[in-house]
Amino acid sequence: MRRHLISAADLSRDDALLILDTADELAKISERSIKKLPTLRGRTVVNLFFEDSTRTRISFEAAAKRLSADVINFSAKGSSVSKGESLKDTALTLEAMGADAVVIRHGASGAPHRLAGWVRGSVVNAGDGTHEHPTQALLDAFTMRRRLGSLDGRRVTIVGDVLHSRVARSNVLLLATLGAEVTLVAPPTLLPVSVGSWPCAVSYDLDSVLPKSDVVMMLRVQRERMNAAFFPTEREYSRRYGLDRDRVAKMHDDAIVMHPGPMNRGMEIAAEVADSPRSTIVEQVANGVTTRMAVLYLLLGGANLGGEDQ
Amino acid sequence: MRRHLISAADLSRDDALLILDTADELAKISERSIKKLPTLRGRTVVNLFFEDSTRTRISFEAAAKRLSADVINFSAKGSSVSKGESLKDTALTLEAMGADAVVIRHGASGAPHRLAGWVRGSVVNAGDGTHEHPTQALLDAFTMRRRLGSLDGRRVTIVGDVLHSRVARSNVLLLATLGAEVTLVAPPTLLPVSVGSWPCAVSYDLDSVLPKSDVVMMLRVQRERMNAAFFPTEREYSRRYGLDRDRVAKMHDDAIVMHPGPMNRGMEIAAEVADSPRSTIVEQVANGVTTRMAVLYLLLGGANLGGEDQ
Amino acid sequence: MRRHLISAADLSRDDALLILDTADELAKISERSIKKLPTLRGRTVVNLFFEDSTRTRISFEAAAKRLSADVINFSAKGSSVSKGESLKDTALTLEAMGADAVVIRHGASGAPHRLAGWVRGSVVNAGDGTHEHPTQALLDAFTMRRRLGSLDGRRVTIVGDVLHSRVARSNVLLLATLGAEVTLVAPPTLLPVSVGSWPCAVSYDLDSVLPKSDVVMMLRVQRERMNAAFFPTEREYSRRYGLDRDRVAKMHDDAIVMHPGPMNRGMEIAAEVADSPRSTIVEQVANGVTTRMAVLYLLLGGANLGGEDQ
Repeated sequence: MRRHLISAADLSRDDALLILDTADELAKISERSIKKLPTLRGRTVVNLFFEDSTRTRISFEAAAKRLSADVINFSAKGSSVSKGESLKDTALTLEAMGADAVVIRHGASGAPHRLAGWVRGSVVNAGDGTHEHPTQALLDAFTMRRRLGSLDGRRVTIVGDVLHSRVARSNVLLLATLGAEVTLVAPPTLLPVSVGSWPCAVSYDLDSVLPKSDVVMMLRVQRERMNAAFFPTEREYSRRYGLDRDRVAKMHDDAIVMHPGPMNRGMEIAAEVADSPRSTIVEQVANGVTTRMAVLYLLLGGANLGGEDQ
Repeated sequence: MRRHLISAADLSRDDALLILDTADELAKISERSIKKLPTLRGRTVVNLFFEDSTRTRISFEAAAKRLSADVINFSAKGSSVSKGESLKDTALTLEAMGADAVVIRHGASGAPHRLAGWVRGSVVNAGDGTHEHPTQALLDAFTMRRRLGSLDGRRVTIVGDVLHSRVARSNVLLLATLGAEVTLVAPPTLLPVSVGSWPCAVSYDLDSVLPKSDVVMMLRVQRERMNAAFFPTEREYSRRYGLDRDRVAKMHDDAIVMHPGPMNRGMEIAAEVADSPRSTIVEQVANGVTTRMAVLYLLLGGANLGGEDQ
Repeated sequence: MRRHLISAADLSRDDALLILDTADELAKISERSIKKLPTLRGRTVVNLFFEDSTRTRISFEAAAKRLSADVINFSAKGSSVSKGESLKDTALTLEAMGADAVVIRHGASGAPHRLAGWVRGSVVNAGDGTHEHPTQALLDAFTMRRRLGSLDGRRVTIVGDVLHSRVARSNVLLLATLGAEVTLVAPPTLLPVSVGSWPCAVSYDLDSVLPKSDVVMMLRVQRERMNAAFFPTEREYSRRYGLDRDRVAKMHDDAIVMHPGPMNRGMEIAAEVADSPRSTIVEQVANGVTTRMAVLYLLLGGANLGGEDQ
């Protein structure tokens, strides 16, 4: 049986709760100052990154090392991949070298799915194109649960460039599974045409949605997309979709503000909002390590988390 | 006494058999699911790579980590080496930092030999220019032995750009030591002038050699060399020296196909051949880790494997 | 209470002696062939390098691994830092990921100081702009003490481009604290205007200072600065400030020659001088690992080494 984490859509409610509960247990152990567990001693986790993402790579590296796994970082730049080696041959190579898990970040949507078809070890999707980033969704859900308790019936608003955001897609899928009500807020040109089939509502008016939200999740603006025809100007974007103090004042007292990082302070989120007590941005980073520990622990320990049996 | 692995030529038959037997033992331990041995705990292995070679680097890294050594990766790019520091000063620096073994990949033939003259720790040649790549030859011999039993009298055909191939040179030297009969098949312009003094036969006609071969080892075509004057055209090369299904049909039933990777599928080897049961390509990768474990185990444990005492 | 090592100026005489004595203890343990200590098991050290410096990074990496810490290397190139993330957000991210210590190399003077204001973990300055490099000064002092005994009243001459040298600045500050008498020798254009307030003497005549020196420390010439208007020509520099055999002959018998590396052999130091018994250059590298072990050991073990409590 093969065990992977490719898509938030593959996770049943029970799968997702098992991961979150395991992360809770790991967080408790960590709070007792036990920083390193022997669980994955002798196991090898390969970080296979075709795109630069130091944050995500470090988060997985820290998670694997705290479980005593060996970690090998494989940046595709300058590797035989750049000499034309196929993803399949790279996969077979890593498999043969004894990788128990491959954490893959790839620019092409679907690459982790293909990889999972070729290897016996576990594949963890660390972001593929504009498709999915399931551990980001899991750490976000973990963060919400720690702040708000159960996600059932919670209203989560996700704001920004949904079209290009794997974070948004994975969050929508996972949050629906966990019983939350998601509303996307974005300029019409930054919503995917398929959004009508997503398990969520859509709004173009942030101010009307804010008072009803338990969670407001701001997406990162990709500055390199800012000058594209479909993109509002920087000033226009910030005015209509940026989260500043005035907007936060419309939120109810217990509502929280999230951001997957790295932030553009002053663009999609004001600095004072990012640093306010409502903000979970630093917690999200810490929770990222804990949640990824839970995923590696369960996958390499033998659980089947919505894995694809191919 | 200094202990290094610089050249396959330095290995006596007993040295080579000791490495292969040790690799056999390590493979058996690994098959009992004992993935990590404490043997090299507290030892430091430095991967000193002046050329990109993610595969080889990862293979040595995995080997060292399974023996519980600490691994430090030193890519010469952007280092003080690029500020004009000499190889000698780099060597003395690594030595002083406590490197017990330095695994070196260098574009200049002879660099590992020079390095071995400067340091007390072990030097392992991970490929130097067009000169040698002894651990590749060892893993190839290990793979042949696992598939075919003893190498004595086995007929091994190596096909391709021998002129630029450290893999070919190291294989010829080691296989001769182990009693195999090697035939090189290559376009005349891709054979070194010195080949007459090598312990092997030469042929320009692949089809006549195939039926008598126990092993056919295809060398990687370096695409960046394809347009050089001495190189056949891509189509011509593939037609005369490529291993496709028709050619494989001429091989006897137990003969195997090898490739050091990464492959150019459809160029020197057809995809269906690479993926066939005759192919040992994936095994070679796995055996690479095991063989390198054996080399590090023996060198750092005190064996003298054809080392140069300088 | 926060504990950092930002500047040699922050170290009291007792702080500095504690580090040097701890390094002595660690060196003795290492000489008994105990290469790895369990002290920092479960702790995470992040090497946050905004400038390439393979030597310094490897030295800290080796030091942390010998204390059994997990090491995560974070090169700022290609990271979200290059997408405009602020140093503060990077710091908060590393903190949240559980970094117990951040070793930072940065092109801007003062960056480690700012970092220390944002994180609970320890910050170690591994070189900031032209400001400071305190562990280099500590390893130099450790090296002098091993060769010469106490530093009290010892005469140390530092020669070269003091203006751009964080090594010189940190050495002057630490050596003054430890009771040595420092003389700087440099072309007038390569001395900082503030040098009058430094706790040291200044001379423009190397030959007159050499006979009185117990230590002559040659600074690296940054070749990229050689053509600047304020810089002497290469030949002129070497003639007036280079340490060759004739100059060494003027030194007293027990005096030593130091260089932080990497050297420009034939420029600021002759090859035969670099390789002579007076030279401590290789010892400095080995002592660098030991001294950095002592710093990490003390900081993460709870000592307050001139740390800034912010």
